[in-house]
Amino acid sequence: MKDLHEIAGRSRQSFYQISVSDINSRNAALLRLAELLVQEKSLIFEENQKDYALAETEQLSLPLLHRLTFGEEKLQQVVLGLKALASIEDPLNHTLVSTEITEGLNLYKVTSPIGVIGVIFESRPDALIQIASLCIKSGNSVLLKGGREALGTNHALAALVRQALSDSGLPADSAQLLETREDVTEMLKEDALIDLIIPRGSNSFVRYIMDHSRIPVLGHSDGICHVFIDEYANPDMALKVAVDSKVQNVSVCNAMETLLVHEHMAPLFLPRFFTELSDRNVEVRGDAAACRIIPCKPASDIDWSTEYLDYILSVKVVSSLQEAIDHINRYGSHHTDCIVTDNQQNASVFLKMVDSAGVYWNVSTRFADGFVYGLGAEVGIATGKLHARGPMGLEGLTTYKYMLLGSGQTMDDMKKGIRSYTHIRLDEDCPV
Amino acid sequence: MKDLHEIAGRSRQSFYQISVSDINSRNAALLRLAELLVQEKSLIFEENQKDYALAETEQLSLPLLHRLTFGEEKLQQVVLGLKALASIEDPLNHTLVSTEITEGLNLYKVTSPIGVIGVIFESRPDALIQIASLCIKSGNSVLLKGGREALGTNHALAALVRQALSDSGLPADSAQLLETREDVTEMLKEDALIDLIIPRGSNSFVRYIMDHSRIPVLGHSDGICHVFIDEYANPDMALKVAVDSKVQNVSVCNAMETLLVHEHMAPLFLPRFFTELSDRNVEVRGDAAACRIIPCKPASDIDWSTEYLDYILSVKVVSSLQEAIDHINRYGSHHTDCIVTDNQQNASVFLKMVDSAGVYWNVSTRFADGFVYGLGAEVGIATGKLHARGPMGLEGLTTYKYMLLGSGQTMDDMKKGIRSYTHIRLDEDCPV
Repeated sequence: MKDLHEIAGRSRQSFYQISVSDINSRNAALLRLAELLVQEKSLIFEENQKDYALAETEQLSLPLLHRLTFGEEKLQQVVLGLKALASIEDPLNHTLVSTEITEGLNLYKVTSPIGVIGVIFESRPDALIQIASLCIKSGNSVLLKGGREALGTNHALAALVRQALSDSGLPADSAQLLETREDVTEMLKEDALIDLIIPRGSNSFVRYIMDHSRIPVLGHSDGICHVFIDEYANPDMALKVAVDSKVQNVSVCNAMETLLVHEHMAPLFLPRFFTELSDRNVEVRGDAAACRIIPCKPASDIDWSTEYLDYILSVKVVSSLQEAIDHINRYGSHHTDCIVTDNQQNASVFLKMVDSAGVYWNVSTRFADGFVYGLGAEVGIATGKLHARGPMGLEGLTTYKYMLLGSGQTMDDMKKGIRSYTHIRLDEDCPV
Repeated sequence: MKDLHEIAGRSRQSFYQISVSDINSRNAALLRLAELLVQEKSLIFEENQKDYALAETEQLSLPLLHRLTFGEEKLQQVVLGLKALASIEDPLNHTLVSTEITEGLNLYKVTSPIGVIGVIFESRPDALIQIASLCIKSGNSVLLKGGREALGTNHALAALVRQALSDSGLPADSAQLLETREDVTEMLKEDALIDLIIPRGSNSFVRYIMDHSRIPVLGHSDGICHVFIDEYANPDMALKVAVDSKVQNVSVCNAMETLLVHEHMAPLFLPRFFTELSDRNVEVRGDAAACRIIPCKPASDIDWSTEYLDYILSVKVVSSLQEAIDHINRYGSHHTDCIVTDNQQNASVFLKMVDSAGVYWNVSTRFADGFVYGLGAEVGIATGKLHARGPMGLEGLTTYKYMLLGSGQTMDDMKKGIRSYTHIRLDEDCPV
C-alpha cells in the first residue's frame, strides 16, 4: 500500500505548477507522449501480452479480454487522439464575462483548472492515456487507478506519461498511478488535497465511492436509456432507431434498456420490432398490453429500473406522451432518452420535460458519447446535474475564478455613496 | 414533523411543471409577489414584531436581532429586488453550443433548471424572498428552511410566495416552507427527489449537511480571506484596502482574517496599520517577525486557519510573493484573497496561483458579493470548485441538457461508414 497522503500532497504541489504552465508546454507534453508511445511500443505490447496471458489463466470473460488488449490498432488510435488534442485551443485563461463594477474596478470571470482529480477506470489501458492527456491539456493533476488486469500495461503507459511531462518542463507528479483497491480507499480520505473523484464502473461501485468520501464525485451511476415510439412516429424510422439503440452494442451505458410505445402504434410496431429482436436473440419482457400483442415474458417492476447491459429488453405500452415522460423521469437514470415522432409539438414537450442529460429526437441513443458530440474525448459521462452533464470533456475539467482588478476601492466608499455601481458589460479579456 | 417524502414528491411534480413554464408566467409571479408584499405588509410586520419580541425574551444577540428585523426599509429593498429580477432575461432555454454531428443530425446544448433545491438559511427573513424568487425565475422548485427565530415572519412570507405562484398559473408547491431541524434531517434522506442542497451557515453546519446526505451540496464552509501587502505596494492604498477589508464589517464571510505583508514593506506599513486598527479596537495576533515591529499577541498555528468574524486579525510577515501564495493555498478557504501591489508581474502570478473563487488586485475583499458582481442577487457564495464558484446567482441555479435532433441516424450506419462525422459548429438556437 502506498502513502496516499504523501502522493496526494505531491499531486497538489504539481497542480500549482501545471496550473500556471504555458499551453505550449502542455501541448508539447502531449506530442512528446505520442512520440514515446511509438518509440516504446514493443515494451508496451510485451507488458500487455503478459497481462493478457494472466487474465486468460484467470478465465476473464471474452469482452473483458477484448477490452484489455492494447496492440497496434489501439496504439494508432491513441496517437491520433493525442495529436488531435494538442491541436485544440487552450481551455484555460478564457475570459467568460467581464464587467466594470465601478470606475476603475473591473471584474473578469476566467476559466481555470480544477486541481487534483482522482480517476478510477476499467480495464481498457487506452483509457489511461485518454484521461491523463485530458488532464494535462486542462492543467490538472491526476491520480490514475486502472483495472487490476491491466496493471503491467498501465505501469508502462504511466511511466511514458511522466517522462513526457518531464521532457516538456512540467512536473512528472502531476500524473501518478495508483495500484490497489487499498490505494483507492486511502485516496478517498484525502479531501483536503483532492478536488474531484471521477469513478467509471458499475452503479454500486459509484455509490460506494460517493458514500465513502467527502470529495465531490462526478460519475454516472446507471445507463437506463429509453426509446419512446410516439403515435406519430414514422414506423420505418422507429424500427431503425429502436433496433440500433438496443443491439448495435448491448453492453454499453447508452444502449436502450426499455422501449415505450404509444398504444395506437403498438399493434403495428411491436410485431415487426419483435421479429427483428428475435433474429438477434433478444429476450423481451413486456407489460400486460405488450404481452397481448407479442409473445414475451411478463415484466416486473424491477425490470423498469434495471440496466441489463445484455440481450434483454423491457417493453411497455403507454396511453399518452405524458405517461411516457412520467415513466422515464421515474424509472430512468437521467442519461439519454429518445422520442421517435413526426410531430414537432410532441418532440418539443418530450425534450423539455424529460429530465435527462441527453434528450433525443429521431436518433439512436448510441450517439451519447464525447467523441460523437465533438468534445474531442471524454473522461466519463455524468448523469448528475451539477457542473458537467452528459459526456464530459475538457470543459468539464475546468472551473473559473473571479479576478477583480482595482485601484484601491473600498466598500466604505461605496456605502457612503462616494462611488456608485456602474455594472457595465465590457466584453474584453482579462489583461493580466 | 412533516412527511418530507410526501413534500419532496410534491416539489418534484411541481418542478416538472415550472421547468417548462413560460418566462412570462415566472416574471408575473415575481411582480405579483412584489404587489402582495406591499398589500399585506401590516400582517408581515406584525408577525415580525412577534418574532422579535420572542427573540428578545430569549436574549438573542443584538446583531441577530438586527438581522431578524423586517420593516419598511427591508420591504422596499425586497420589492425593488423582485422588480429588478423580473426585468432580467430568462436564464433557461439558451442554446450554449450547437453542432452538426453528421448530415441531418444537430446537437444543441441548452440551459435548463436543476430540479428540486433545498435551501437552509439564517435568521434574515428577506433571504426567504431572495432565494425563492431566484428559484422561481430559474424554473426550479425550492424547499425553504429559515432560522427558527423568524418562523412567524417566514410563514407569512412563504404564504405570499405560494399565492403569487398560484395567481400566475404556476404550482404553489414549487415553493414550500420547512419548519424544524427534524424536517431538515428528513429532507437530507430524499436523494431520489432532491437535486441540490444549499446550506448557509457555519462551517461545522455545512460539514454536517455534507456528511449526512447523498444529495450534492453547494455551500461555503468558511471565509478565511487574506490581504497580501507586496513589497511593491503603494502604502496609502495598502492601508485603505487592508482597513476596509478588516473593519468595514467584521462579521461577514468576505472580511479579512489574516494580513500577510512582505518583509521589505512590514517596517513601514505595520506601524501605520496598527494605529488604524487600535483606533477601531482590533486585537492583533502576529508571528514573531510582526511582534518585533508592532505590539501584538503571538499567533498560534490555529490562528491561520480561524475565521474570527470579529475584531481580531492575524498578521504574518513573509519573505516572498511565493511564501504568501503558499500560505493562502494552505490555510485559506478558497473564498477571496487580495494582493496590493504596483507590480503587474507579481499581481499576475498571485491571481493565477492563488486557488480561490475570488482573486483581487488592489481592492477590498468586501467586494465578494452577488449584487456587487452584477449577478442581481445571490443564493450563496460557493467555496467549492465545481458547478458554481463564488457568489452564486441565477446561472448557478441552471444546468444544461444536450438536445439531439435527427432523422433516423443509427450508430450502425456510422460504424459502417455510410455516414461520417462532420462536427460543424452551427451557432444557431435549438429550433424546438
